[in-house]
Amino acid sequence: MFKAEIDANTFGEVIDVISALVNECRIHINDEGISTRAVDAANVAMVSVSLGNGAFNAFSAETCEVGFDVKKLRNIAGMMNKADNVNLLLPESSQKLELSFAEYKYSVTLLDPNTIRKDPNPPQLDLPARVVIPGDALHSAIKAAAVVSDKIAFVIDPDSESFIMEAEGDTDHITKEMKKGDLISITPVKCRSLFSIDYLKEIGKVMSGASSVEIFMGTDHPVRFLFNFADSKGHAEYLLAPRIEAD
Amino acid sequence: MFKAEIDANTFGEVIDVISALVNECRIHINDEGISTRAVDAANVAMVSVSLGNGAFNAFSAETCEVGFDVKKLRNIAGMMNKADNVNLLLPESSQKLELSFAEYKYSVTLLDPNTIRKDPNPPQLDLPARVVIPGDALHSAIKAAAVVSDKIAFVIDPDSESFIMEAEGDTDHITKEMKKGDLISITPVKCRSLFSIDYLKEIGKVMSGASSVEIFMGTDHPVRFLFNFADSKGHAEYLLAPRIEAD
Amino acid sequence: MFKAEIDANTFGEVIDVISALVNECRIHINDEGISTRAVDAANVAMVSVSLGNGAFNAFSAETCEVGFDVKKLRNIAGMMNKADNVNLLLPESSQKLELSFAEYKYSVTLLDPNTIRKDPNPPQLDLPARVVIPGDALHSAIKAAAVVSDKIAFVIDPDSESFIMEAEGDTDHITKEMKKGDLISITPVKCRSLFSIDYLKEIGKVMSGASSVEIFMGTDHPVRFLFNFADSKGHAEYLLAPRIEAD
Repeated sequence: MFKAEIDANTFGEVIDVISALVNECRIHINDEGISTRAVDAANVAMVSVSLGNGAFNAFSAETCEVGFDVKKLRNIAGMMNKADNVNLLLPESSQKLELSFAEYKYSVTLLDPNTIRKDPNPPQLDLPARVVIPGDALHSAIKAAAVVSDKIAFVIDPDSESFIMEAEGDTDHITKEMKKGDLISITPVKCRSLFSIDYLKEIGKVMSGASSVEIFMGTDHPVRFLFNFADSKGHAEYLLAPRIEAD
Repeated sequence: MFKAEIDANTFGEVIDVISALVNECRIHINDEGISTRAVDAANVAMVSVSLGNGAFNAFSAETCEVGFDVKKLRNIAGMMNKADNVNLLLPESSQKLELSFAEYKYSVTLLDPNTIRKDPNPPQLDLPARVVIPGDALHSAIKAAAVVSDKIAFVIDPDSESFIMEAEGDTDHITKEMKKGDLISITPVKCRSLFSIDYLKEIGKVMSGASSVEIFMGTDHPVRFLFNFADSKGHAEYLLAPRIEAD
Repeated sequence: MFKAEIDANTFGEVIDVISALVNECRIHINDEGISTRAVDAANVAMVSVSLGNGAFNAFSAETCEVGFDVKKLRNIAGMMNKADNVNLLLPESSQKLELSFAEYKYSVTLLDPNTIRKDPNPPQLDLPARVVIPGDALHSAIKAAAVVSDKIAFVIDPDSESFIMEAEGDTDHITKEMKKGDLISITPVKCRSLFSIDYLKEIGKVMSGASSVEIFMGTDHPVRFLFNFADSKGHAEYLLAPRIEAD
């Protein structure tokens, strides 16, 4: 059994965070809130989201696991007005989630969680370098890099204590250097890793609204993005595997 | 001979109402105003429009019938500014309509009315159930239903005196229930008919701007939508054939 | 060596003027400013632009000629905010232009000017007729004509001292007549030439923002459009060959 009430806005944000990477996911529900962790089809990126019960206007749940068609929920979220209050109801042992808002009632058949790939184990990673920057600064750097290349490098230069995003095209080059004063915070450990812009564009769009994104990096290692949403009651994480730099 | 002056806004509204269903039509002109009635190519839906001479800033006409290329007039309407005054002139026995507005003068060759299918006879229908709702409530229900299905049922439940629009997809279901308080008016006769969302999307867009739409229904019968436009000087009607519900 | 500082807005305007016709061009730089002249691939239209050093916030240059990939610079301009200050640096004998703005630094490989077609010689033309009109009046006439045809005639009627733009479709006709009071200025010499709307649409969009466009015309002769941009510190000219009117 799961019964909750949530703002349309928060509902939409959760769905957007997840749908940047996957079309379906397992949602874990218990009395403390809901959470999910999923990897994309190509095993390149992982998303983790948790939303505490405090993010809901009302919340009562028994521990369970359900399969969500994220794309379909995104279409439904698109029908909501921001001010709508969304009621969610999953009756005991039912396979249909009932969503109601305004004068609408949707009944959505859930996916069998057994048909969705198992929850990935979060890898143990040693990512000693760290910066915190506004989400829109990250997003605009990704868009700028896309003009010249399909890859972007995330670099920390410990000497100048600056965070550098750079992309190298066949003939052109672009650098965005954020110095200490431009950063919310930095742990200036030397690092450099290269990432696919395709993935970053999707998740960058989601993170562009976050006032701060915490980025953990290493050298030729994955990057981890942490950010909050829904007035900091929702926590999200993206993990993205590196591309190997050719010489 | 036909000579008239009309607001660009009203001109655009008439064209929009017609172009939701057909690309060409016969316009009947007489000293009381203009009107048309046309069915779509698949014979599924009919549109009727009349615009009294009071909707014009100036109007003088002899009885005649002309063929309009609705698509072309829509393109021309798209060039007008809302505040423009549009002058229409069809000289005696001419086949060219002259439209002028701002510094523009268009001369548009009319279609031969004999090449356009005859005016349909409005069918005699017994549609005892009736609701009146705001146009945007109708339009948003149609868009919501489109998320799960390509058909929507219009239902009146006489016991609860409510108007229900519902759509059934392969796995999902959506209901919009408007109770008595949400409706402008209701004649609560039991009814249920199913309609194609494709048609409703087009005509729903046009009706979304109407403050009220009067809907007449039966069971497995067509639906009739009546609404006004151009400050109630224009009257429009859509009639849409039902789809038969498979068991 | 070339080193300059310019508003992002002005930078974008120069690029837009050029990119309406060509994808690459030779830029001539000297201590008075920059300029270019280029013809489109089909030899139908020519663009000339000059931007005096006063349009720059800082400017120092030795005489040189560089090849620009206009499309690429347009993408980069798209990343700028209007309020950005753009720094341009072309080191002595370098083939890479460095653009920096906000926290970004782009390094763009220039094209070899020898691979770009030679500067066209501006043809000697006798175009005795002349009108000056607002850029948006010109642009909207072009869009209106596109509804009925792919060609537009520019006509001056010396008797009524009016400037007429007209298009003739297979069945329809459109005229925009601007009388003396609608024009900023007119030299009422009889003329009539026909032009391709495809070209005019592109350059009309650029000119739509100009408060005035000076148009020189003849009969079955090219048309010349002159206008300023960047607070009148930039001067631009388009020259467009006529289409020959079939009888």
